[in-house]
Amino acid sequence: MRLTLRLDLDETRHIGHGKIKLIELVAQTGSISAAARAMNMSYRRAWLLIHDVNCMFTHPIIETQLGGKGGGHAKLTAEGQSLINLYRSIESTIQKDWAADLTQLNKGLTPAPHIKKSKSI
Amino acid sequence: MRLTLRLDLDETRHIGHGKIKLIELVAQTGSISAAARAMNMSYRRAWLLIHDVNCMFTHPIIETQLGGKGGGHAKLTAEGQSLINLYRSIESTIQKDWAADLTQLNKGLTPAPHIKKSKSI
Repeated sequence: MRLTLRLDLDETRHIGHGKIKLIELVAQTGSISAAARAMNMSYRRAWLLIHDVNCMFTHPIIETQLGGKGGGHAKLTAEGQSLINLYRSIESTIQKDWAADLTQLNKGLTPAPHIKKSKSI
Repeated sequence: MRLTLRLDLDETRHIGHGKIKLIELVAQTGSISAAARAMNMSYRRAWLLIHDVNCMFTHPIIETQLGGKGGGHAKLTAEGQSLINLYRSIESTIQKDWAADLTQLNKGLTPAPHIKKSKSI
Protein backbone atom coordinates (compact mmCIF):
# COMPACT_ATOMS: atom_id res chain seq x y z
CA MET A 1 0.00 0.00 0.00
CA ARG A 2 1.25 3.43 -0.78
CA LEU A 3 0.05 6.97 -0.40
CA THR A 4 -0.07 9.26 -3.38
CA LEU A 5 -0.44 13.00 -3.12
CA ARG A 6 -2.32 15.45 -5.23
CA LEU A 7 -1.79 19.18 -4.99
CA ASP A 8 -5.05 20.94 -5.71
CA LEU A 9 -3.97 24.44 -6.66
CA ASP A 10 -7.57 25.50 -7.18
CA GLU A 11 -10.79 24.12 -8.65
CA THR A 12 -9.31 23.33 -12.06
CA ARG A 13 -5.57 22.94 -11.54
CA HIS A 14 -4.05 19.83 -10.02
CA ILE A 15 -0.61 18.29 -9.82
CA GLY A 16 -0.50 14.63 -8.94
CA HIS A 17 1.68 11.59 -9.21
CA GLY A 18 1.56 11.47 -13.03
CA LYS A 19 2.69 15.03 -13.69
CA ILE A 20 5.41 14.81 -11.02
CA LYS A 21 6.73 11.60 -12.55
CA LEU A 22 6.70 13.16 -16.02
CA ILE A 23 8.59 16.24 -14.79
CA GLU A 24 11.17 14.00 -13.09
CA LEU A 25 11.66 11.99 -16.27
CA VAL A 26 12.09 15.15 -18.35
CA ALA A 27 14.68 16.31 -15.80
CA GLN A 28 16.52 12.98 -15.96
CA THR A 29 16.48 12.56 -19.72
CA GLY A 30 16.62 16.23 -20.79
CA SER A 31 13.94 15.42 -23.32
CA ILE A 32 10.15 15.56 -23.44
CA SER A 33 9.99 12.82 -26.07
CA ALA A 34 12.20 10.45 -24.04
CA ALA A 35 10.08 11.12 -20.96
CA ALA A 36 6.90 10.52 -22.99
CA ARG A 37 8.27 7.18 -24.26
CA ALA A 38 9.20 6.12 -20.74
CA MET A 39 5.64 6.81 -19.62
CA ASN A 40 4.13 5.20 -22.69
CA MET A 41 2.35 8.37 -23.75
CA SER A 42 2.42 10.44 -26.92
CA TYR A 43 4.82 13.35 -27.30
CA ARG A 44 1.83 15.63 -27.81
CA ARG A 45 0.22 14.55 -24.55
CA ALA A 46 3.48 14.94 -22.61
CA TRP A 47 4.04 18.36 -24.15
CA LEU A 48 0.51 19.49 -23.21
CA LEU A 49 0.93 18.27 -19.63
CA ILE A 50 4.25 20.11 -19.27
CA HIS A 51 2.65 23.17 -20.83
CA ASP A 52 -0.23 22.95 -18.32
CA VAL A 53 2.17 22.80 -15.39
CA ASN A 54 4.29 25.66 -16.74
CA CYS A 55 1.14 27.78 -17.10
CA MET A 56 0.27 27.23 -13.43
CA PHE A 57 3.30 29.13 -12.16
CA THR A 58 4.77 32.54 -12.85
CA HIS A 59 8.18 30.86 -13.29
CA PRO A 60 8.37 27.86 -15.62
CA ILE A 61 8.95 24.41 -14.13
CA ILE A 62 10.53 23.01 -17.29
CA GLU A 63 12.45 25.18 -19.75
CA THR A 64 12.67 24.07 -23.36
CA GLN A 65 15.12 25.11 -26.05
CA LEU A 66 14.39 24.45 -29.67
CA GLY A 67 16.85 23.22 -32.31
CA GLY A 68 20.63 23.31 -32.04
CA LYS A 69 22.94 20.33 -32.43
CA GLY A 70 21.11 17.12 -31.56
CA GLY A 71 17.69 18.81 -31.46
CA GLY A 72 15.87 20.55 -28.63
CA HIS A 73 16.52 20.23 -24.95
CA ALA A 74 14.30 20.41 -21.89
CA LYS A 75 15.51 21.15 -18.41
CA LEU A 76 14.19 21.47 -14.89
CA THR A 77 14.34 24.99 -13.43
CA ALA A 78 15.12 25.83 -9.79
CA GLU A 79 11.37 26.36 -9.25
CA GLY A 80 10.73 22.94 -10.78
CA GLN A 81 13.27 21.37 -8.45
CA SER A 82 11.55 23.00 -5.45
CA LEU A 83 8.19 21.64 -6.55
CA ILE A 84 9.56 18.11 -6.95
CA ASN A 85 11.41 18.32 -3.62
CA LEU A 86 8.29 19.47 -1.78
CA TYR A 87 6.09 16.78 -3.33
CA ARG A 88 8.55 13.95 -2.64
CA SER A 89 9.33 15.20 0.89
CA ILE A 90 5.69 15.21 1.90
CA GLU A 91 5.21 11.81 0.31
CA SER A 92 8.15 10.15 2.07
CA THR A 93 7.31 11.82 5.40
CA ILE A 94 3.75 10.56 5.49
CA GLN A 95 4.81 7.15 4.22
CA LYS A 96 7.21 6.94 7.19
CA ASP A 97 5.04 8.60 9.87
CA TRP A 98 1.94 6.57 9.09
CA ALA A 99 3.66 3.28 8.32
CA ALA A 100 2.06 1.42 11.25
CA ASP A 101 -1.47 2.54 10.37
CA LEU A 102 -0.97 1.66 6.72
CA THR A 103 0.35 -1.79 7.65
CA GLN A 104 -2.72 -2.26 9.85
CA LEU A 105 -5.06 -1.21 7.04
CA ASN A 106 -3.18 -3.49 4.67
CA LYS A 107 -3.97 -6.48 6.88
CA GLY A 108 -7.67 -6.00 6.25
CA LEU A 109 -7.35 -6.08 2.46
CA THR A 110 -8.84 -8.85 0.40
CA PRO A 111 -6.14 -10.67 -1.58
CA ALA A 112 -7.54 -10.71 -5.08
CA PRO A 113 -7.42 -7.50 -7.09
CA HIS A 114 -9.75 -8.94 -9.74
CA ILE A 115 -12.71 -6.84 -8.82
CA LYS A 116 -15.21 -5.24 -11.14
CA LYS A 117 -13.86 -1.75 -11.51
CA SER A 118 -16.05 1.30 -11.97
CA LYS A 119 -14.52 4.51 -13.25
CA SER A 120 -12.56 5.93 -10.34
CA ILE A 121 -13.50 9.29 -8.90
CA MET B 1 -4.09 25.29 -2.29
CA ARG B 2 -4.88 21.98 -0.70
CA LEU B 3 -3.38 18.53 -0.57
CA THR B 4 -5.47 15.53 -1.46
CA LEU B 5 -4.50 11.99 -0.66
CA ARG B 6 -4.89 8.79 -2.57
CA LEU B 7 -4.42 5.41 -0.99
CA ASP B 8 -3.02 3.03 -3.59
CA LEU B 9 -3.85 -0.38 -2.20
CA ASP B 10 -2.20 -2.08 -5.16
CA GLU B 11 -1.95 -1.63 -8.93
CA THR B 12 -5.70 -1.59 -9.53
CA ARG B 13 -7.32 -0.52 -6.27
CA HIS B 14 -7.32 3.06 -5.11
CA ILE B 15 -9.20 5.12 -2.55
CA GLY B 16 -9.08 8.84 -3.04
CA HIS B 17 -10.93 12.00 -2.15
CA GLY B 18 -14.06 11.05 -4.13
CA LYS B 19 -14.67 7.67 -2.53
CA ILE B 20 -13.91 9.02 0.96
CA LYS B 21 -16.37 11.86 0.47
CA LEU B 22 -19.01 9.43 -0.78
CA ILE B 23 -18.51 7.11 2.22
CA GLU B 24 -18.79 10.10 4.59
CA LEU B 25 -22.01 11.22 2.93
CA VAL B 26 -23.48 7.72 3.16
CA ALA B 27 -22.53 7.70 6.86
CA GLN B 28 -24.14 11.10 7.43
CA THR B 29 -27.34 10.46 5.49
CA GLY B 30 -27.73 6.73 6.08
CA SER B 31 -28.59 6.41 2.43
CA ILE B 32 -26.66 5.65 -0.77
CA SER B 33 -29.20 7.53 -2.89
CA ALA B 34 -29.04 10.66 -0.72
CA ALA B 35 -25.22 10.54 -0.85
CA ALA B 36 -25.34 10.08 -4.64
CA ARG B 37 -27.65 13.10 -5.00
CA ALA B 38 -25.36 15.22 -2.83
CA MET B 39 -22.43 14.34 -5.09
CA ASN B 40 -24.47 14.79 -8.25
CA MET B 41 -23.94 11.22 -9.38
CA SER B 42 -26.31 8.40 -10.27
CA TYR B 43 -27.44 5.90 -7.65
CA ARG B 44 -25.94 3.15 -9.80
CA ARG B 45 -22.52 4.81 -9.86
CA ALA B 46 -22.56 5.46 -6.12
CA TRP B 47 -23.62 1.87 -5.46
CA LEU B 48 -20.79 0.53 -7.67
CA LEU B 49 -18.21 2.71 -5.93
CA ILE B 50 -19.38 1.57 -2.49
CA HIS B 51 -19.37 -2.01 -3.76
CA ASP B 52 -15.79 -1.56 -5.02
CA VAL B 53 -14.62 -0.25 -1.65
CA ASN B 54 -16.43 -3.02 0.23
CA CYS B 55 -14.74 -5.62 -2.01
CA MET B 56 -11.31 -4.22 -1.14
CA PHE B 57 -11.54 -5.22 2.52
CA THR B 58 -12.37 -8.43 4.34
CA HIS B 59 -14.79 -6.44 6.53
CA PRO B 60 -17.32 -4.19 4.79
CA ILE B 61 -16.89 -0.42 5.02
CA ILE B 62 -20.58 0.31 4.48
CA GLU B 63 -23.32 -2.14 5.49
CA THR B 64 -26.63 -2.02 3.67
CA GLN B 65 -29.99 -3.35 4.73
CA LEU B 66 -32.76 -3.83 2.22
CA GLY B 67 -36.44 -3.01 2.70
CA GLY B 68 -38.18 -2.45 6.00
CA LYS B 69 -40.15 0.63 6.99
CA GLY B 70 -38.95 3.63 5.00
CA GLY B 71 -36.84 1.55 2.64
CA GLY B 72 -33.26 0.40 2.89
CA HIS B 73 -30.58 1.79 5.09
CA ALA B 74 -26.80 2.10 4.75
CA LYS B 75 -24.42 2.53 7.62
CA LEU B 76 -20.74 2.97 8.27
CA THR B 77 -19.04 0.03 10.03
CA ALA B 78 -16.27 0.34 12.65
CA GLU B 79 -13.77 -0.58 9.90
CA GLY B 80 -15.24 2.17 7.72
CA GLN B 81 -14.88 4.67 10.54
CA SER B 82 -11.21 3.68 10.97
CA LEU B 83 -10.57 4.16 7.26
CA ILE B 84 -12.18 7.62 7.27
CA ASN B 85 -10.33 8.60 10.45
CA LEU B 86 -6.97 7.52 9.03
CA TYR B 87 -7.51 9.33 5.73
CA ARG B 88 -8.68 12.57 7.36
CA SER B 89 -5.94 12.47 10.04
CA ILE B 90 -3.17 12.17 7.46
CA GLU B 91 -4.78 14.91 5.38
CA SER B 92 -5.08 17.39 8.24
CA THR B 93 -1.60 16.58 9.58
CA ILE B 94 0.15 17.27 6.29
CA GLN B 95 -2.00 20.33 5.68
CA LYS B 96 -0.81 21.68 9.04
CA ASP B 97 2.82 20.50 8.95
CA TRP B 98 3.50 21.76 5.44
CA ALA B 99 1.46 24.95 5.62
CA ALA B 100 4.47 27.26 5.19
CA ASP B 101 5.75 25.41 2.11
CA LEU B 102 2.30 25.34 0.55
CA THR B 103 1.88 29.07 1.18
CA GLN B 104 5.25 29.64 -0.47
CA LEU B 105 4.29 27.53 -3.49
CA ASN B 106 0.97 29.34 -3.64
CA LYS B 107 2.78 32.66 -4.07
CA GLY B 108 4.27 31.47 -7.35
CA LEU B 109 0.91 30.57 -8.90
CA THR B 110 -0.46 32.42 -11.88
CA PRO B 111 -3.80 34.01 -11.04
CA ALA B 112 -6.03 32.90 -13.90
CA PRO B 113 -7.29 29.34 -13.86
CA HIS B 114 -8.50 29.62 -17.46
CA ILE B 115 -5.87 27.38 -18.97
CA LYS B 116 -6.25 24.84 -21.73
CA LYS B 117 -6.70 21.64 -19.84
CA SER B 118 -5.48 18.28 -21.07
CA LYS B 119 -6.84 15.11 -19.53
CA SER B 120 -5.24 14.87 -16.11
CA ILE B 121 -3.01 11.92 -15.30
